[in-house]
Amino acid sequence: MKDSSGPRIEILAIGAELLTPYYVDTNSLFLTKQLNRLGMRVVYKTVVGDDKEDLAACIRTARQRSDLIFAMGGLGPTQDDMTREVFADTLEKRLTFHPNLWKQIRLRFQKRGISISEVNRKQAFILEGAEALENPNGTAPGMWIQFDHKIWVLLPGPPRELEPMFVDNVLPRLTGMRRGYQAQTTLKITGLTESQTETDIADLYPGLGKDVRCTVLAAPGQIEIHLSAFSEHGEEEAERMLDQPTSALRSRLGLHVFTSEKETLEEVVGRRLHEQQSTLAVAESCTGGLLGHRITNVPGSSRYFLEGVQVYSNQAKIRLLNVSPALLERHGAVSAEVAACMAENVRKNSGADFGLGITGVAGPDGGTPGKPVGLVFISLASSERTQTEKNLFLGDRETIKRRATQKALDMLRLELREDNPGNPTP
Amino acid sequence: MKDSSGPRIEILAIGAELLTPYYVDTNSLFLTKQLNRLGMRVVYKTVVGDDKEDLAACIRTARQRSDLIFAMGGLGPTQDDMTREVFADTLEKRLTFHPNLWKQIRLRFQKRGISISEVNRKQAFILEGAEALENPNGTAPGMWIQFDHKIWVLLPGPPRELEPMFVDNVLPRLTGMRRGYQAQTTLKITGLTESQTETDIADLYPGLGKDVRCTVLAAPGQIEIHLSAFSEHGEEEAERMLDQPTSALRSRLGLHVFTSEKETLEEVVGRRLHEQQSTLAVAESCTGGLLGHRITNVPGSSRYFLEGVQVYSNQAKIRLLNVSPALLERHGAVSAEVAACMAENVRKNSGADFGLGITGVAGPDGGTPGKPVGLVFISLASSERTQTEKNLFLGDRETIKRRATQKALDMLRLELREDNPGNPTP
Repeated sequence: MKDSSGPRIEILAIGAELLTPYYVDTNSLFLTKQLNRLGMRVVYKTVVGDDKEDLAACIRTARQRSDLIFAMGGLGPTQDDMTREVFADTLEKRLTFHPNLWKQIRLRFQKRGISISEVNRKQAFILEGAEALENPNGTAPGMWIQFDHKIWVLLPGPPRELEPMFVDNVLPRLTGMRRGYQAQTTLKITGLTESQTETDIADLYPGLGKDVRCTVLAAPGQIEIHLSAFSEHGEEEAERMLDQPTSALRSRLGLHVFTSEKETLEEVVGRRLHEQQSTLAVAESCTGGLLGHRITNVPGSSRYFLEGVQVYSNQAKIRLLNVSPALLERHGAVSAEVAACMAENVRKNSGADFGLGITGVAGPDGGTPGKPVGLVFISLASSERTQTEKNLFLGDRETIKRRATQKALDMLRLELREDNPGNPTP
Repeated sequence: MKDSSGPRIEILAIGAELLTPYYVDTNSLFLTKQLNRLGMRVVYKTVVGDDKEDLAACIRTARQRSDLIFAMGGLGPTQDDMTREVFADTLEKRLTFHPNLWKQIRLRFQKRGISISEVNRKQAFILEGAEALENPNGTAPGMWIQFDHKIWVLLPGPPRELEPMFVDNVLPRLTGMRRGYQAQTTLKITGLTESQTETDIADLYPGLGKDVRCTVLAAPGQIEIHLSAFSEHGEEEAERMLDQPTSALRSRLGLHVFTSEKETLEEVVGRRLHEQQSTLAVAESCTGGLLGHRITNVPGSSRYFLEGVQVYSNQAKIRLLNVSPALLERHGAVSAEVAACMAENVRKNSGADFGLGITGVAGPDGGTPGKPVGLVFISLASSERTQTEKNLFLGDRETIKRRATQKALDMLRLELREDNPGNPTP
């Protein structure tokens, strides 16, 4: 290894499909996350197709500039899979046949009742001096080879093979190279835009310290602040380094932070409904079922979610929710009055503790100067009261639907919070 | 340019955030798609952070092995943005100040009512000999520089700046390098697994010809076959080269092909409902609103989608759909009988032409030996008849929900097809 800042790591992804417009890389993100936890940083990522000379050139470049190289892909049985052979040629290592690997590969086929082809035999060849890395989820074994102060790790391309192989067979070999300890936390925020969030927290950045990193990621209706801290001395110190920044961010962003766990907004709401033994019913117009879909993505949601109605037509609003034709006539289907009526009546009809109602213009057509695309009324009804909010969401049809459901879930989250002054004292 | 197979193209992405576990690359996919249309292939993709020496090493490597290099990112005004300076150093070109660019940048700030910082001044510096590429969507101009038989194109990182700059200012400069013409088509398939599809079409591959490429992409309940043809002689010939393979695939895959256009399954179904002036209502149990959500993602869906009910609880099935308690008792909520009753009654209640009913076990809990996770009954009711299908879907909760809605939409698509023998003759 070159210097005290740890090995220079390169990720080399191999395969013609990686150079098409369809490929979305997830392997390198997975490896990066795993390596970062050991305090190791990736310096280069390279993608190359399945051309012998192009791959050989990448291997030579990696050999010059990197110390620890993870090569992924091209270990399969087909003609296009040439990683094994090109590495052997370029690194000047022979390929040797391992009868025990060949036996394992044949066993795997037998178990699945598939006849094995002789082309698979090449997967039992390993670079001279390399250790084979077992692949319980496929036929291609990985390889670990160390020489000339460099380490090369060859991994299969499919994520379902690469990920367990990395965790079980590569990570343990890397722990000796650990540069330190990384702790991570994520604050998930709703009800603020990305720029509002950035503005709110900008003055906290300088105080984070050089070993704490902050990354802000935005999605419609949701911002995530990823904090990571790095310590040479131990996991606990790294965790401790996050305490101050996390609580500073929390107190700055207040109720907008809905979790610092791996959970979604619908999971937070579901957990609280379940804890408080409350039930929910929803009435959706412009979101057309997305709210119900999100709520029922949570396993066990049948404990608190009773029913929903997608009242797309006025007739459906009248028949399924007893919205009066006069109300629809007077205020229009997209109005605070109709949203409130939808929330109240779906609650009453279903016998649920809470009712949510959404009505709006998702676009791209159907907007008018008075009721433009993105105008969405959202109402939350409980036994105590009905709150209705008028929103103007930006974005395309699906984004507006998403933002509307996010807002509806957030109104319910705030209503359900333990310190809600509106809640009855226990 | 090295040889007759066209320039060797490298995409170089620059920025520390690209080496974090959060980054998902879309720029390189965009560039690849655009370049492929000109018959140009990408040979290497490289990602590097914002370290001067690492970047300089990548520039030197690209200079050795590639002819046409697209560098993206690091053109912003901050200290971390060093692409301009490192390219100048490494390629031994001076940076020269362009007063007109500085004026444009200041104007942009003025228009938005923001005061400009002196740090932005560095964005008005351009490599000696380079042409500036206008950036109407940001402050960083791009650069095009050609020397020593190489072309370097520097582009801003944000997709909303890069994409229009590429289309408006880079593509026209590349057309002289066109190697040929690419035509593309996509067949979207449902009702077959990836391996069924592969098996069905395997013997067609050898007949595709060396200039026709076939890529199979799988998602839950849907397979896409991307075909592209390459001709040196013209767009029409490339299109023509796709005719035979496309019709061979179509006749092999039959009714499983639901479109060769850019449309989704819900758009195909929506188009047919609209053409046939038919209406639809849905009753969802385990999918919890996803079917309604997908149907209403299509703009204009209010013309044919009347309503939906998410009948999660038995009470809701009884009250909203008149499912009899005796039927629920006898067959259980997850049964062909209840699915049929849901489809028939949502159709009757709403007055729609078609009713879809879905009931099943989405998991991960709630399965029994008789009714395992993934068991889903789907029913389609029309004025003529009710068809019910029993399915056993694999995957996690969201995948099972997705597959169930895909199947429901597909049953309706097949029912609505013009040559459906069950349809009344026009």
